[in-house]
Amino acid sequence: MSGRSAVAPLTRLEGLGFVVDPLDRLSYRREDADEVARLRARGDARAIVIARDMPVLLRTEARLEPLLPISEIETLGGAQIEALLGVTSGGAPVFAALIRDEAVEEQSDASDGFLDRRVLVVPGRDDLKLIDLRSIAAGGLVPPDEASMLASAKALMHWHARRRFCSNCGARNEVAAAGWRRQCPVCKMQHFPRTDPVVIMLAVDGDACLLGRQPRFPKGMYSALAGFLEPGETIEAAVRREIQEEAGVACGEVRYFASQPWPFPSSLMIGCFAEARSLALEVDRVELEDARWFPRDEALALLERRHPDGLAAPIPMAIAHHLLKRWAYDGVNFR
Amino acid sequence: MSGRSAVAPLTRLEGLGFVVDPLDRLSYRREDADEVARLRARGDARAIVIARDMPVLLRTEARLEPLLPISEIETLGGAQIEALLGVTSGGAPVFAALIRDEAVEEQSDASDGFLDRRVLVVPGRDDLKLIDLRSIAAGGLVPPDEASMLASAKALMHWHARRRFCSNCGARNEVAAAGWRRQCPVCKMQHFPRTDPVVIMLAVDGDACLLGRQPRFPKGMYSALAGFLEPGETIEAAVRREIQEEAGVACGEVRYFASQPWPFPSSLMIGCFAEARSLALEVDRVELEDARWFPRDEALALLERRHPDGLAAPIPMAIAHHLLKRWAYDGVNFR
Repeated sequence: MSGRSAVAPLTRLEGLGFVVDPLDRLSYRREDADEVARLRARGDARAIVIARDMPVLLRTEARLEPLLPISEIETLGGAQIEALLGVTSGGAPVFAALIRDEAVEEQSDASDGFLDRRVLVVPGRDDLKLIDLRSIAAGGLVPPDEASMLASAKALMHWHARRRFCSNCGARNEVAAAGWRRQCPVCKMQHFPRTDPVVIMLAVDGDACLLGRQPRFPKGMYSALAGFLEPGETIEAAVRREIQEEAGVACGEVRYFASQPWPFPSSLMIGCFAEARSLALEVDRVELEDARWFPRDEALALLERRHPDGLAAPIPMAIAHHLLKRWAYDGVNFR
Repeated sequence: MSGRSAVAPLTRLEGLGFVVDPLDRLSYRREDADEVARLRARGDARAIVIARDMPVLLRTEARLEPLLPISEIETLGGAQIEALLGVTSGGAPVFAALIRDEAVEEQSDASDGFLDRRVLVVPGRDDLKLIDLRSIAAGGLVPPDEASMLASAKALMHWHARRRFCSNCGARNEVAAAGWRRQCPVCKMQHFPRTDPVVIMLAVDGDACLLGRQPRFPKGMYSALAGFLEPGETIEAAVRREIQEEAGVACGEVRYFASQPWPFPSSLMIGCFAEARSLALEVDRVELEDARWFPRDEALALLERRHPDGLAAPIPMAIAHHLLKRWAYDGVNFR
């Protein structure tokens, strides 16, 4: 069962966020400026508008609409960066646009727990609402395919916003390839959007699995261990290293489970199971507040939110939820 | 069988390059400058020296030694960048060092096919030999564990060499965390080493598999299709997109096979199998010179270098070789 596609059939990963990629990205068209301009000029062209890393949604009678008429880009003062995301199955071109920071105003807000606390508004536009993508996805405010488009747009614009200068020579670089490349007019270095591979894994020992909690987690939440893959590592080596470093547990076999784009800011979550070869815990207190072995019945209680100590698993939008669920309900075969 | 670890047991991926990660990376020690200095001062400390992206090897009676005495860094004029790679199983600290470009001289060379054509020398040091990492790995010039260390060192130094300036504000940034971070003294942005996920996959239809050749390939070589994963994509979506774009073939189920660090310059190769749902080919002639379906008997001939037309599979150092081998000998189960 491991190694199965993360998107087909979707029901097997019910609620996993950002995994439905609905667009034909038209990547072979990106160098064709005329074609990109034609697509942008079409009446059915739409824009996903990002301001200070947050999507701008259009409030309609029925719902919050993430695909705005492309004319809104100009209405909102124009874009710093635009990118062609692709075309929908219906054939509508979709662009991502990063508007100027000054186009929105920050307001303080009552805390809503672990969600982003900034509230941004577009002055004079009560029909527009800015909501951080985590809240949009966690709250199911838009359908899965739109959440995926928002993820691509946010990750790409976040990258652009912090790549105005050439890292090689310090000159201001230029946008190219319909927003999918930056290049330096001085040293000619080309810069491509960055995606950081992150391993997130459930170490298991027969009928028990290893979960930890970071200080920033919501109260009572325990999740799978995770960390960035480093240059020179295989996925499997990174999985073993992170479990060893964070919990002091040695692991043998590693099995791939599924992957998930995680646009906070621009990661690829690579979900795996790891076969524990030791049980004694030595928790890295810098990374983790706690780590412990949970027997299967407790894991089920975490998933079903009925744990006697009020502990809980991550919500279904996160791949950690599905790692735990797959193991708790179906088990994992390392042989 | 898919989803198995790429490194255990190694014999199942005989000859795959850069997958043996022999070092304890001591990542939790990187912020401790005193500890890093203590490790560097040890008599058994070693350095992997990189000059202009190429490893500097020490020629001994017996072999080419990639782990130089750390004192060689000063002998060679000092390092632009140093990084703590970790400690060997024997406990020896290993550092990576990028020496100044001027410490080596370029010489022209008779072409050796698809391998790097530059030849660099250290003036007055006949005991030192610079060889590009592709040739080192392809030729088996060093043991697998040393090739992996060279891969980590090369990828990390390549990243540093092109990240001297802050991409966010253009200021010169500084090296931190024992060579595992750069940070901007002006805007305070932190920059981490980059690893680019690349999907490389074999599309299969029962008893046939899809291979293509890029113009830059050595004569007669056919390999698995591949491409960079983009922001907002799952591994599975990237696999389907690349096959659709490059060959016009639609795919359904995707199965993870294995992963491989590929330090040219700093990729993570994610090997997968994809279940073809169409057979008609529409080859992207910008990316590929040719793409075609190979029946299993021809695939075996490619692997065993006995194809009647002189066609051949990539060498075992490349994961494409093992994707083809796994399918040709064992088959792939998508259910």
